[in-house]
Amino acid sequence: MMFKVENLKLLQAQLRKDGLSAYLILTGDSHASEYAADYFLAERKYFCPFTGSAGQVLVTPEKAYLFTDGRYFIQAEKQLRGSGIQLMKIGQKDVPELSDFIKREKLYPLGVNCSMISLNFYRKLTYKEGKIVDTDYSNLVENRPSLPVGKLWKLDEKLYTLSCQEKISKIGKEIEQIGAEANLVTTLDDIAWILNLRGSDIPCNPVFYSYLYISPKYGNHLFVNLNKIDFKIEGVELHNYEEIVDFIDKHADVETLVDENRVSARLVKHLNHPISGRNPSYLMKAIKGKVEIANTKKVHILDGLAMLKFISFIDENIDNNLSEYDYAEELEKYRRENELCYDLSFETIAACGPNAAQMHYAPTKKINTIVTPDQMELLVDSGGQYLGGTTDTTRTFAIGPLSKEYIHDYTLTLKSVIALSTSVFMDGSSGVTLDYQARKFMWNEGMDYKCGTGHGVGYMLNVHEGPNGFRYRIVPERDDSDKIVPGMITTIEPGVYKEGKYGIRIENNLVCIPAFETEMGTFYKHETITCVPIDTKALDISIMSDDEIEWLNDYHTFVYNNLAPLCDAKLLKVLKDKTKKITR
Amino acid sequence: MMFKVENLKLLQAQLRKDGLSAYLILTGDSHASEYAADYFLAERKYFCPFTGSAGQVLVTPEKAYLFTDGRYFIQAEKQLRGSGIQLMKIGQKDVPELSDFIKREKLYPLGVNCSMISLNFYRKLTYKEGKIVDTDYSNLVENRPSLPVGKLWKLDEKLYTLSCQEKISKIGKEIEQIGAEANLVTTLDDIAWILNLRGSDIPCNPVFYSYLYISPKYGNHLFVNLNKIDFKIEGVELHNYEEIVDFIDKHADVETLVDENRVSARLVKHLNHPISGRNPSYLMKAIKGKVEIANTKKVHILDGLAMLKFISFIDENIDNNLSEYDYAEELEKYRRENELCYDLSFETIAACGPNAAQMHYAPTKKINTIVTPDQMELLVDSGGQYLGGTTDTTRTFAIGPLSKEYIHDYTLTLKSVIALSTSVFMDGSSGVTLDYQARKFMWNEGMDYKCGTGHGVGYMLNVHEGPNGFRYRIVPERDDSDKIVPGMITTIEPGVYKEGKYGIRIENNLVCIPAFETEMGTFYKHETITCVPIDTKALDISIMSDDEIEWLNDYHTFVYNNLAPLCDAKLLKVLKDKTKKITR
Repeated sequence: MMFKVENLKLLQAQLRKDGLSAYLILTGDSHASEYAADYFLAERKYFCPFTGSAGQVLVTPEKAYLFTDGRYFIQAEKQLRGSGIQLMKIGQKDVPELSDFIKREKLYPLGVNCSMISLNFYRKLTYKEGKIVDTDYSNLVENRPSLPVGKLWKLDEKLYTLSCQEKISKIGKEIEQIGAEANLVTTLDDIAWILNLRGSDIPCNPVFYSYLYISPKYGNHLFVNLNKIDFKIEGVELHNYEEIVDFIDKHADVETLVDENRVSARLVKHLNHPISGRNPSYLMKAIKGKVEIANTKKVHILDGLAMLKFISFIDENIDNNLSEYDYAEELEKYRRENELCYDLSFETIAACGPNAAQMHYAPTKKINTIVTPDQMELLVDSGGQYLGGTTDTTRTFAIGPLSKEYIHDYTLTLKSVIALSTSVFMDGSSGVTLDYQARKFMWNEGMDYKCGTGHGVGYMLNVHEGPNGFRYRIVPERDDSDKIVPGMITTIEPGVYKEGKYGIRIENNLVCIPAFETEMGTFYKHETITCVPIDTKALDISIMSDDEIEWLNDYHTFVYNNLAPLCDAKLLKVLKDKTKKITR
Repeated sequence: MMFKVENLKLLQAQLRKDGLSAYLILTGDSHASEYAADYFLAERKYFCPFTGSAGQVLVTPEKAYLFTDGRYFIQAEKQLRGSGIQLMKIGQKDVPELSDFIKREKLYPLGVNCSMISLNFYRKLTYKEGKIVDTDYSNLVENRPSLPVGKLWKLDEKLYTLSCQEKISKIGKEIEQIGAEANLVTTLDDIAWILNLRGSDIPCNPVFYSYLYISPKYGNHLFVNLNKIDFKIEGVELHNYEEIVDFIDKHADVETLVDENRVSARLVKHLNHPISGRNPSYLMKAIKGKVEIANTKKVHILDGLAMLKFISFIDENIDNNLSEYDYAEELEKYRRENELCYDLSFETIAACGPNAAQMHYAPTKKINTIVTPDQMELLVDSGGQYLGGTTDTTRTFAIGPLSKEYIHDYTLTLKSVIALSTSVFMDGSSGVTLDYQARKFMWNEGMDYKCGTGHGVGYMLNVHEGPNGFRYRIVPERDDSDKIVPGMITTIEPGVYKEGKYGIRIENNLVCIPAFETEMGTFYKHETITCVPIDTKALDISIMSDDEIEWLNDYHTFVYNNLAPLCDAKLLKVLKDKTKKITR
């Protein structure tokens, strides 16, 4: 299933034959997943060498374009070399949006697999008489993988606040309030959350391919490969995954709530009375219950212990010419030493020097760099899936001789983390209200990181989750700018990325909690739950305020108090050293 | 046309007779104006005693409700006393939105004058089979005023960057790009801006009631009372105001761009192919040209001189028991001494003590308070319409003995102004991105001001203008959260309002200018153009940073340098005193 230039040429010849002006290859699946099983990624991988987790390939009989965002510019430029595919940097001046580009170039008839795009995206592609052909070219792909077959598993009762039945009942009430009779849920993390079930269909994302139909009137129905499930679910009827279309056809006249940003354009056309709106589960899932929050906090301590062992390992091995990949493997080992850890929450990013400037660089067994003592830094962004929560942490470790510029930028990054982490805000504030608190330090110096400042984190689920997030402007298709309320867990991960030089990022996970209530309003703040020492070697204390120094020392006290009881004597020494007070 | 309880009872009796479950009285006109001529306000004033500039009255046969926002809570509570009308505080917990309330209470058939609501608002009121009856009860109003008849006047060529023909041509190109053949502009400030004409139909808002139809294919047509215009406009055909409906009926099949947030529900129903979108003039008008910016800066100096004379007047008269109204009149006199000033930009707010806590309190000849030397403060929010620009400035002057709490809150307010005024931001940032910079000082202490932090300002036009503004969350119906770009003029006006105690507000006007361009992005900042000393008597310097003190001293140097050449010896002395350096 590997990319070769000939694959692309074959596809282009087929487009000519079929009379299509262009064919659009999506990264994703029929469930609006960010990460998808290889079954769905077959075409993207076969016709394009880019390996990032976000990007759309537009192929015309003569040309080909990859549209991707700022996280992947550097990586994509490298990987596309020699492929004949032109990189379109989304968000940059003069780079049109994909749909605008298609319209401007009048690339119709346009071929696209309509089970891979949302109804709203379909609408964006629609242009006057321009014909959209629902088709796909997976038949051209050699050795296309099949759909995954891993078993579903139930969460232990101690792992959730609300039972599946309670969640379904809440959803039933919400949809009735907006005048719908049913809710067709197609997003996998919502389904897993509602049912208190998990699967293993997508690496690092413990979900399972399925559809869930919730209706106080017509019953609740789960559509999933029945070979994957060997238990019953109270109040939910089971069907095979493929039966969803027949079922919807039979219930076509039911007033059905569907999220038009997420449901596939092909499926929604079978409904005669779709009611457009968000799935109630999208917000419910983000506001973690008491059990989920308590568990996640515990899990962050376990994760912190793994990270502490790793920090100690770096110090001991810096002269041993280990590769980034070796470090990533070592860290995974420490995480998996804990029996509650059942997966990583994403592929570990371990990147030194210029590699770290690529926001989502991940070393592989084949392609990686040796971390030598003259590198400035090792950036490690990683997380685990635990029975009790999902983590996502970044630390950037100073390794060799540091430039003044690096020290300055590292300190700015920490200042960004602190400013946003300590912001008090009134009910109604979103991540857009608060994002500038992190970004101002970079913007004041003409720098910017080309990504959001943070994202919601799932509970034993996807590491990226909405509708909470931090970014400086609303990106409608991300749907992550809801008001932030107590119970939401969000990352804060500002950074500085300088192509060819270095990359710096510090990332914590925070839970929103009440701050105070006055006659003028209800106010919230955040509590940091990541429990990992922040490297202080590269700090320029002279540009830190007293409050910032105090914050860091308080944070390290918190880390020390939580990790110390779990350390042996040797590790305790490391912990003491890594969390020691800094002073002017 | 004054309110009496009997008027409301008469209306309620009529509703019963007509079989309506409710009747909705809007504040506004058929052009989505914020301030409207009395002709359109007749019902609101006759059936409700509230005098604020925003609010909707919902009348049922038995009850009546006023929905209004935070700026007016205190004022409305006072004015509604004894009226039998219940206050609904928009934005407060448990207070539903007007349209949700109507749906929840199933107040159908619902009567509403559909020429007074936008198409989108009509849609919000629509609920299942609930009937909406397009009607009005202005026939019950005694002595309803007629439509205003003031003459239109042309702007001198020196007062604008683009001619009317250039603007129309730009709009023509923009609408063609989105596939429309015509643009029906119904908002009065857009029409005045496009045509470089002004009128006098609404106090303080130099606009004229009219409709403008722009079409490269079908010509450009202005609909206005022809008695009000005694010149021709090149490239624009003139028609009487009332002819708009006939004209639209004749052009019903033209693909016409209409702003569904602003065009009236009644009018848009005459179009067979409306294309929904913003009027291009909405954004164009906000990005001031070179001429407009240069003129506005000059005008702010003239306005600053009037304010300086007023400041001197306060100092001299504080023991003379003048009323708030006397002060407001005096300030108006100083503004109008300048021959370029042709109106105020809004009714002057001069409020002392607890009155200042009502954000939009304005004293009248009849109702006002005497400013005595034991009052803590006099808050003055005012502005002028000049040949060359529109101003909007607030200063709060310390008068008598100040409480510690007052001094603290006044200093916080200035800190808010400074933080937002000095923020550097990347292209793409909106007022939502930046608003927290002003609000954080209040929020940290559990306080909040119940309004936006700032709004766009027109050029010789309405003092409130979009699509720029500062607020902490997007309010879709305000449509004022566009990205902020060079040329936009926006106010910054944070404050502290404590019911029964005092109100504090400091307001400047700022123009967005480029900051710098780096390989990581394009960055902007703001330049303050208001030129009025900021009272330093109530400052607690101990909670100000060195940077903040420097900002204030620099600002006062700017004020001094601009005003000094215009001062006589006596005034120069005052200016020197009011702009003298502060130090720790």
